[in-house]
Amino acid sequence: MASPESDSHAAFEAWLREGVRWSDACLQEALQSLDLGPVELARALRYPLEAGGKRLRPSLVRLFGRALGAQDSELQGPAAAIEFVHTYSLVHDDLPCMDDDDLRRGVPTTHSVFGEAVGVLVGDGLLTLAFELLAQSGGPRALEMVGVLARAAGPSGMVGGQVLDLAAEGQITDLEGVRRIHRLKTAALIEAACELGAIAAGADDGCRTAVRRYGLALGLCFQAIDDCLDVTGDSADLGKTPGKDAAADKATLVQGLGLEGARTEAEAWAEEAREAARQLGLGPDHMALQLVDWLLARRS
Amino acid sequence: MASPESDSHAAFEAWLREGVRWSDACLQEALQSLDLGPVELARALRYPLEAGGKRLRPSLVRLFGRALGAQDSELQGPAAAIEFVHTYSLVHDDLPCMDDDDLRRGVPTTHSVFGEAVGVLVGDGLLTLAFELLAQSGGPRALEMVGVLARAAGPSGMVGGQVLDLAAEGQITDLEGVRRIHRLKTAALIEAACELGAIAAGADDGCRTAVRRYGLALGLCFQAIDDCLDVTGDSADLGKTPGKDAAADKATLVQGLGLEGARTEAEAWAEEAREAARQLGLGPDHMALQLVDWLLARRS
Repeated sequence: MASPESDSHAAFEAWLREGVRWSDACLQEALQSLDLGPVELARALRYPLEAGGKRLRPSLVRLFGRALGAQDSELQGPAAAIEFVHTYSLVHDDLPCMDDDDLRRGVPTTHSVFGEAVGVLVGDGLLTLAFELLAQSGGPRALEMVGVLARAAGPSGMVGGQVLDLAAEGQITDLEGVRRIHRLKTAALIEAACELGAIAAGADDGCRTAVRRYGLALGLCFQAIDDCLDVTGDSADLGKTPGKDAAADKATLVQGLGLEGARTEAEAWAEEAREAARQLGLGPDHMALQLVDWLLARRS
Repeated sequence: MASPESDSHAAFEAWLREGVRWSDACLQEALQSLDLGPVELARALRYPLEAGGKRLRPSLVRLFGRALGAQDSELQGPAAAIEFVHTYSLVHDDLPCMDDDDLRRGVPTTHSVFGEAVGVLVGDGLLTLAFELLAQSGGPRALEMVGVLARAAGPSGMVGGQVLDLAAEGQITDLEGVRRIHRLKTAALIEAACELGAIAAGADDGCRTAVRRYGLALGLCFQAIDDCLDVTGDSADLGKTPGKDAAADKATLVQGLGLEGARTEAEAWAEEAREAARQLGLGPDHMALQLVDWLLARRS
């Protein structure tokens, strides 16, 4: 007989897989509903979206949206929109003038298939379509979602984090600097994913604050683990080459704290995320809590 | 004594200058109201916005917004937002992998000052901030503006036109192909500028259709003249090197129709724009009509 623990593990794995399926369906529905422009562009726009991925951000939209009482139909637009934004950021990050990556999730990057100019334009197009999707989904809360998504994705969020990350290459960056990069580059968008779910559900301010607290902590935990995996990871698990951050002389937590220190920091953020989930009244079996354990244990 | 014609010319010139001043003030107010992120990014974001320009798009937001009864305070957000989008498109167009330009409006391009990676991120940031601005301006019509701006700027508009323009380089492109590029690459955003003004004013559907007809025709006239100027222009007037389209083997109207044919087409679009303005009940002295004559006569 399976132990309760392995039962709960199996339930979580099923939830993860179902999240990927649901997110993929949201993306396909979004692509159907949008005018993707000239056929040569439409093909290139679909390519990075259909290259797979964990679909963490749309799954978080769904997780908090459902937990707080939103209908699925209210969550599909924002879920697709945030994955469009995440995907655009990967396409631009991979460009020769940025991280110069030929492979992403084990397949050739968008610009290596379609050329650098189209790579820039695919990113621009996905970012623009994310906002078109929110406008299209309508509803009284869509404008608020536009603001939350734009702030998380723009200069005071992800784009700002990218600039800091580039500026930190080859420089001595203090720990506060590394944490700021993580907060902007990674955690802001994960926080926004959780918040979009809460907005769709019409959650009150107190509830939204707790949801954001969870998302920010989860994002910081995610990025701390990412820094550890760059040192300890296996390229077959990661689907990318480990040691890349060190080779590029990127500012990482491991550089400042050592591997054990970075791991301890990841655990502290995990506990902060659990605390926020409990504040929302979510029990230990809730996927928001299991997700924290899974992120801590992840190998890729 | 000045002739009525030179009086009206002087009034138009004053209107143009006042449009630039007003647009610059909207941009500054927008920059003040937004979080521009890390200081190194904030500086780079301001750079292309403050490099000057005709401010045609925000002036069109104002022109139709006022003509149809909107308050100035309702027009400032959308006016700044559309100039953010136009400016992002210039920053990305100038990148080495796109048109590879070192000069724009007579000053070094963003990526030549701040590096290519920051050039990509400044464009991404400006595009994202445009939607944040609309969300921030609030109001019942802001979500509709998000949709109109996104459609005009994205794959079914400007970004799509860029992809077609790149694909047409060095190819035989038929006239319909060139016109499609012009419609998407240039006219869609000019049409959206006019429509944003109409939306801010709460104009009815019939009125909005006429406003869009004007904007589309004006944009196509603008681009037809641009093609002519690339052949006949003077580099001192243009602030850029003429003959660049031909050198890059770009698809142009002049290539397909000859200079005189392209000029005739510009005049046909000008007449279409005038007709739309008359349909809106605007008299011959209205700036919407004078703007058409000015675009036809422009040298830069």
